Amino acid sequence: MQIGVLGGGQLGRMMALAGYPLGLKFRFLESVQDAPVDDLADRVTARYDDEAALTRFAGGLDIITYEFENVPASSAKFLARSHAFFPPPDVLDVAQDRLTQKNFFKKLGIPTAPFAQVDSRADLDAAVQQHGLPGILKTRRSGYDGKGQMLLKSADDVERAWKTLGNSPLIFEGFVPFEREVSIVAARSRTGETAFYPLVENHHREGILRLTLAPAPNLTKELQAEAERCARRIFDDFNYVGVLTIEMFQHGGRLLVNEMATRVHNSGHWSIEGSETSQFENHLRAGLGLPLGLSHALHPSAMINLIGTTPPSEKILAIPGAHLHLYGKSAAPGRKLGHVTIVEPDTARLMEKVRQVQALL
Amino acid sequence: MQIGVLGGGQLGRMMALAGYPLGLKFRFLESVQDAPVDDLADRVTARYDDEAALTRFAGGLDIITYEFENVPASSAKFLARSHAFFPPPDVLDVAQDRLTQKNFFKKLGIPTAPFAQVDSRADLDAAVQQHGLPGILKTRRSGYDGKGQMLLKSADDVERAWKTLGNSPLIFEGFVPFEREVSIVAARSRTGETAFYPLVENHHREGILRLTLAPAPNLTKELQAEAERCARRIFDDFNYVGVLTIEMFQHGGRLLVNEMATRVHNSGHWSIEGSETSQFENHLRAGLGLPLGLSHALHPSAMINLIGTTPPSEKILAIPGAHLHLYGKSAAPGRKLGHVTIVEPDTARLMEKVRQVQALL
Repeated sequence: MQIGVLGGGQLGRMMALAGYPLGLKFRFLESVQDAPVDDLADRVTARYDDEAALTRFAGGLDIITYEFENVPASSAKFLARSHAFFPPPDVLDVAQDRLTQKNFFKKLGIPTAPFAQVDSRADLDAAVQQHGLPGILKTRRSGYDGKGQMLLKSADDVERAWKTLGNSPLIFEGFVPFEREVSIVAARSRTGETAFYPLVENHHREGILRLTLAPAPNLTKELQAEAERCARRIFDDFNYVGVLTIEMFQHGGRLLVNEMATRVHNSGHWSIEGSETSQFENHLRAGLGLPLGLSHALHPSAMINLIGTTPPSEKILAIPGAHLHLYGKSAAPGRKLGHVTIVEPDTARLMEKVRQVQALL
Repeated sequence: MQIGVLGGGQLGRMMALAGYPLGLKFRFLESVQDAPVDDLADRVTARYDDEAALTRFAGGLDIITYEFENVPASSAKFLARSHAFFPPPDVLDVAQDRLTQKNFFKKLGIPTAPFAQVDSRADLDAAVQQHGLPGILKTRRSGYDGKGQMLLKSADDVERAWKTLGNSPLIFEGFVPFEREVSIVAARSRTGETAFYPLVENHHREGILRLTLAPAPNLTKELQAEAERCARRIFDDFNYVGVLTIEMFQHGGRLLVNEMATRVHNSGHWSIEGSETSQFENHLRAGLGLPLGLSHALHPSAMINLIGTTPPSEKILAIPGAHLHLYGKSAAPGRKLGHVTIVEPDTARLMEKVRQVQALL
């Protein structure tokens, strides 16, 4: 089986590492030079909207997926005409536009923070008027890792944000109090089988994920069930195939959905060591219609991102049980270069090891 | 870091899969077309004794190792002149000759079955006379998976074995009663640090490993300590670097060493899921002088080899917790095409799943 993957970043790299033991072969399409998949798989270098290149890329592939959420939906649809493609390309129309995504959640009865479409300065003022400050102004498209969004606390912030972002279609999101950010990674096979990883707790800084604790500490059955219900509604509506990630805010016993990523996700990396089956393997199994693998947490895990620079490997590997994952990328501020996972039955010892890793960053 | 590996089979493939997360790059030297590493790494195709090709292969490499034990010692020594090379090339002189190996064990005070050098029919008769039948006649070089050896039970067998094997330098090994075959995988870093995996129990059929149970059921501390003492003596004598495997017979509370493999080993594959750190990762860490990773068994594990043919993947993956490893090889009788590992705290359930896998073979 030859798998095609749009995007050749670390998610693709880890997908290939998970897929080789299943006897799968990989070909990636990536637009930039020096991608994380270069060392370990075939790749075609081209723009994602170059249909001639897409055709060349697709030749001989059995099935195609993506690891990069900003793949043009039109390219996904183009490939889906000739090949099995997952997740279904329609999903991208929804996922790539924050406003469409929020309206989609509303349609499915999935609770979100209050939001308003902002196409003009007048829309922005009306949204601030209606929902109050603080709030967040976001571009509807192409934001990631905190890019394309600004926190509004004051009238001055509103003015500044409009000047910075006002050229793009926007969405205003009202502020909701929350205790923590959590996410769920779930998989649905083309056979309809589903698997849900436990909710995890995510810690961001400067808009970038720094730490994931899996399962989320003090996770209740009710909260897990609520997250799974959200995922199921999305799965059913799309007849979804593959891994889906939903990021949520927890407030009391309630979840408000923030956004979804229709792909494997940074907050699921712990599953490589922390679960029987990694999110990457289950994504591939889902696409191929193979039975999904067990997705419970074997023990409490922590995943610490390596951002901007990486400590010397020998220092990380000197921490007993620390699993190092480097992505083969050159250092740059804010760039995700790798991660470290620790799986440890004793929670106090887990957090002590997390601190040991963090002390190296 | 660019790692060179002599041999491009499944051991190399799993070594690369273990090394990519450490940020390592790989280049393989392999003499045959269609090798398991082809999909996922650079490779040079050449004979192992082609010095021009070795030089081409070695260009730009930081360190070189092997995954194939019949690499010519002269080639290893040639590469070691210009590059860091592990395990030390001298090891191959000993490991590749069963008689030299047995004499080496004797020198170190490591117990073995009785043995005798056989260079003539008269030698063979003398050996049979001295040690009695049954016994095993083996070629001193190039045997693996039961090839190049014959069991002698009768005078007829002696005659037949001499006709078949008599053209090569031979070793006669006296029969020793034993309850089971076990092996230990151990690693020694270039810093001198050591790590020992638990002794495992191995089940062969037709000379080929079929099943490994890790740790060996009813493993005692004393037996583990005895196996580690053997490994330490070999480590110290060679100033060894990398993973070493020692295959042994257990009789009562005693171990008799059968042979060593100076490389990662089929009986260590369980460690990919069954230990914090796989034998492949620890081999690389050892060569690079990185701290060795934890090598205890997380839970009881079983590794079942897929020989000759592979069942449909969906049948294996339908067994909860079954980890499939396919090597990308074409089917052929007696060929190792993959393996399945199960890690399961409950031993009865582990054995039930083993039977489920075996029922598919």
